[in-house]
Amino acid sequence: MTLLGRFTVVPDGTVTTPQGFRAGGLHCGLKKTERYDLGAIVCDVPAAVAAVYTLNAFQAAPLLVTQESVAAGGKLQAMLVNSGNANACTGEQGLADAREMRAALARQLGLAENLVGVTSTGVIGELLPMPKVLSGIEALPEKVHAEGGDDFCQAILTTDLVKKVACVRVNVGGREVHVAGAAKGSGMIHPNMATMLGFVTTDANISSEHLQQLLSAATDSTFNMITVDGDTSTNDMVVVMASGLAGGDALTPDHPDWEAFAVAFGYVSEHLAKMIARDGEGATKLIEVNVLGAASRDAARAIAKTVIGSSLVKTACFGADANWGRIIAAVGRAGQPVQTETVDVQLGDIMVLSQSRPVKFDEDRAEEYLKGDFVQINVNLHMGNSSATAWGCDLTYDYVRINAAYRT
Amino acid sequence: MTLLGRFTVVPDGTVTTPQGFRAGGLHCGLKKTERYDLGAIVCDVPAAVAAVYTLNAFQAAPLLVTQESVAAGGKLQAMLVNSGNANACTGEQGLADAREMRAALARQLGLAENLVGVTSTGVIGELLPMPKVLSGIEALPEKVHAEGGDDFCQAILTTDLVKKVACVRVNVGGREVHVAGAAKGSGMIHPNMATMLGFVTTDANISSEHLQQLLSAATDSTFNMITVDGDTSTNDMVVVMASGLAGGDALTPDHPDWEAFAVAFGYVSEHLAKMIARDGEGATKLIEVNVLGAASRDAARAIAKTVIGSSLVKTACFGADANWGRIIAAVGRAGQPVQTETVDVQLGDIMVLSQSRPVKFDEDRAEEYLKGDFVQINVNLHMGNSSATAWGCDLTYDYVRINAAYRT
Repeated sequence: MTLLGRFTVVPDGTVTTPQGFRAGGLHCGLKKTERYDLGAIVCDVPAAVAAVYTLNAFQAAPLLVTQESVAAGGKLQAMLVNSGNANACTGEQGLADAREMRAALARQLGLAENLVGVTSTGVIGELLPMPKVLSGIEALPEKVHAEGGDDFCQAILTTDLVKKVACVRVNVGGREVHVAGAAKGSGMIHPNMATMLGFVTTDANISSEHLQQLLSAATDSTFNMITVDGDTSTNDMVVVMASGLAGGDALTPDHPDWEAFAVAFGYVSEHLAKMIARDGEGATKLIEVNVLGAASRDAARAIAKTVIGSSLVKTACFGADANWGRIIAAVGRAGQPVQTETVDVQLGDIMVLSQSRPVKFDEDRAEEYLKGDFVQINVNLHMGNSSATAWGCDLTYDYVRINAAYRT
Repeated sequence: MTLLGRFTVVPDGTVTTPQGFRAGGLHCGLKKTERYDLGAIVCDVPAAVAAVYTLNAFQAAPLLVTQESVAAGGKLQAMLVNSGNANACTGEQGLADAREMRAALARQLGLAENLVGVTSTGVIGELLPMPKVLSGIEALPEKVHAEGGDDFCQAILTTDLVKKVACVRVNVGGREVHVAGAAKGSGMIHPNMATMLGFVTTDANISSEHLQQLLSAATDSTFNMITVDGDTSTNDMVVVMASGLAGGDALTPDHPDWEAFAVAFGYVSEHLAKMIARDGEGATKLIEVNVLGAASRDAARAIAKTVIGSSLVKTACFGADANWGRIIAAVGRAGQPVQTETVDVQLGDIMVLSQSRPVKFDEDRAEEYLKGDFVQINVNLHMGNSSATAWGCDLTYDYVRINAAYRT
C-alpha cells in the first residue's frame, strides 16, 4: 500500500500527457458511420519500445509489419492504427497493404519506415480499401497534436461503447514521470497475449529491454487475465513507447524507484484491462474472480480464468442468480488440483459455500448484490498460498444480438 | 459402408427393446410441474456393465455410489435416476442420501445393493428431499415394465425439450442382438467424460471388460465431442448394461461380428450425442464441425472442439452470417499445429476460404444454408491424414433467457 501511494492518477490524462507524445484521429471511410477509424500516436524522438502479440496462429498482417519494425532497431516513433478492418487472413496482398500503410505514414512524417508500427482491428478476411486508407494517412499529420489523445482513443474503437484510457504520474529519482495508456476491445476477447489493442506511452528514461520486461510481467496479470467470450483474436497487441524525455538516470531494476514505476505501470495495465472487461459486448457488469489458497500461481490463474469464462456463471450473474453450483462446477473442471472438501465461495462478502458445504445465506441480499454493476466472486481453495485474479463480464441478450449481426 | 449396412435402426425401439430389460418413470415431487422426475431401468438378470464418469473434480455423490456398486462385482441389475436435483456438492449427507436411494430400490426389487446404480441430474448444491424420493422409490417397481422405456426417457429430462433415444438391431453369429440408449442433456454440456446422462442397454452376450472397451472408444468420438456451453458438469455419466439374453458365443474382439457390433454400438452413441447437441439450451440448429487433413487425431479433435465451442461462431450461425473469420480465428487459437497458408473452410459445400485465401461466394446462398437447422463447417488443414468431428449448437437469446433464470 505504501508502494501504491507512490503514484498519482492523472484524471484527464491521455496518451499525450507523457512528454514528447502527440496523437490524433480522423474518419477515412472504413466505418460506415462518421466515427473516427484512423489514428496515430507520434513521438518527438525515437522511443524505446516493447510489445506483446497474440498467440493465435493466424497473426494479422499489421502485427507482422510491426514486428519487423521493432526488430530492426528496437525503437518506434509512430504507431498507426485503423479500426473497421482487421487486415487478417488477407494473404500476400494484406501484408503488402500493411507495409504500404507504414511507408505512407513514414513519408508523411519524414521518418525511416522502421520507426513506424501498424495495427488494425475490425472484421477478418477483407482487403483494406487502400485508396481511402492512403487518403486518410495523407490527412493524418495535421490532425496529430498534443491535445489529440481523445481523438486517438475514438479512432481505435469497434463495438466498444466507451473510450478506455488511464494515466498516472510517479516520482522517479525526484522527477515526474508519466505512464498513460489507451485500449480497445469488446468482443473476441480472451487475450493470449491479449485480445485487444493497447497503447501505452511514458516519458520515463528506460531501455526497450527493461520496458519489455515490465510489459511481459504486467500483461500476465492484467491483459491476459480478462475474457469476454473466450475467443482469442488474430490482432491482439499491446505496444509501449517510452520517449525518455522525463530525463534522469535510466530506469533499471537496480534503480531505487524501479518498484514504484513498475507498480504505476501495472496500475495502467490493470485499469485498461478492467475497462475492456466491463465494456465487453452486451455486458451490464464487471465480474472479478479472485482465487486464493491455490497450490500454485498457474493453478490459481487457470481456475480464475475457467470461472470467469463459464457461460453458465456469466448468465447467472446477468440474471442475479446466486447459483454457486455453477461456480464450483467451473472450479472442478479447470484441470487443476482441488481438494473437494475445503473450498469456500463468497459473492462479495456473502459466504455461500464454506469448506465445500452450502451455507444458508440471505437470498435477497445476494440478489441485490448481483444486480450491481460490479460483482466479486471469491474462491478460497485452502490448499496453498498462491492467488490470481481474472476479470470478465456477464453474458446477455445483447451479446447475442451484437454477434448475430456483426459483419452484416 | 458395408459395415454400416450390417445394422438396422429400430424406429420405435427404446431401452426396453433389448431382451431382459424393463423400465419406467413417475413424478415424485422433485420438479415443480407434474413432469416425471424419477425412473429406473431394471434387468431380469445381473447385467455386465461398463460406465464412464465426468472428469470434473467435484463428482456428484450418486456417481461415487454407482462406482462402488460397479467395483463390487462388475454387474448391475438396476439403474435408478432422478432429475431436478443433482445431489452434487452436498457433502456427507448427499453421499448418505445416494446410498439410501440405492438401498431402498434394492429392497423393493429384492436385489443385493451392489447390483443397483444411482444417477442424478438437476440443480447443484441442494440436499434431496428424501421423504419424497423414498415414497417415489416405493411406488416405482409397479411402474417398471416392458413398455416403460418412454416413461423412463421422460423421467431423466431437465431443460431438455425432446426425448433422446436410439435403438438398432445387428446380426451377431446368426442371432439378433439389440443396442438401445436413452440420454439427457441440454445445458452444462461439454462432456469430459460426457456432460450428460446416458443409458445404453443391449442383450448382447459380452463381458463387462469388453463392454468397457467399446464404451470408452465410442465415448471419445461421440459424447466427448459435443459441447453446448463449454461447461463440464459434476454429474456426467454413461452406463451400459448387457443382459446377455440374446445368447450365442460371447462377443470378444476375436468374434467375426465384433466389428459389426462395435459399429452398431457407435451408431447409438453418436445418435444420442447429436440429439443432445441439437437440443442444447436455446438452440435452433445442430452444428457439425469436421476437421480434415490434420497432423494428428488429437490436433483434429482439439481444433474441432475449439471451433464448435466458440461463442462467436455459435452466434454467427444463429444470425446466419457467413463470418468465416471467426472460424479461422478459432482454428488458430486451438493451440495446435496449423499451416497458416493451406487452410480450406467450407460451409456445407460452399467454399469460403481456399488455401487460406477468401473465396468469392454467393452470400445469399450461404445465408440460406446457415438458416437451416443443420449446419456443417468443414475445415481442411492440408497437413496430414487425421480427422475428427464435433457437434454443438448455436448460441441464442433463449440460451441467455434459460440460464439467467434456471435456479429460481
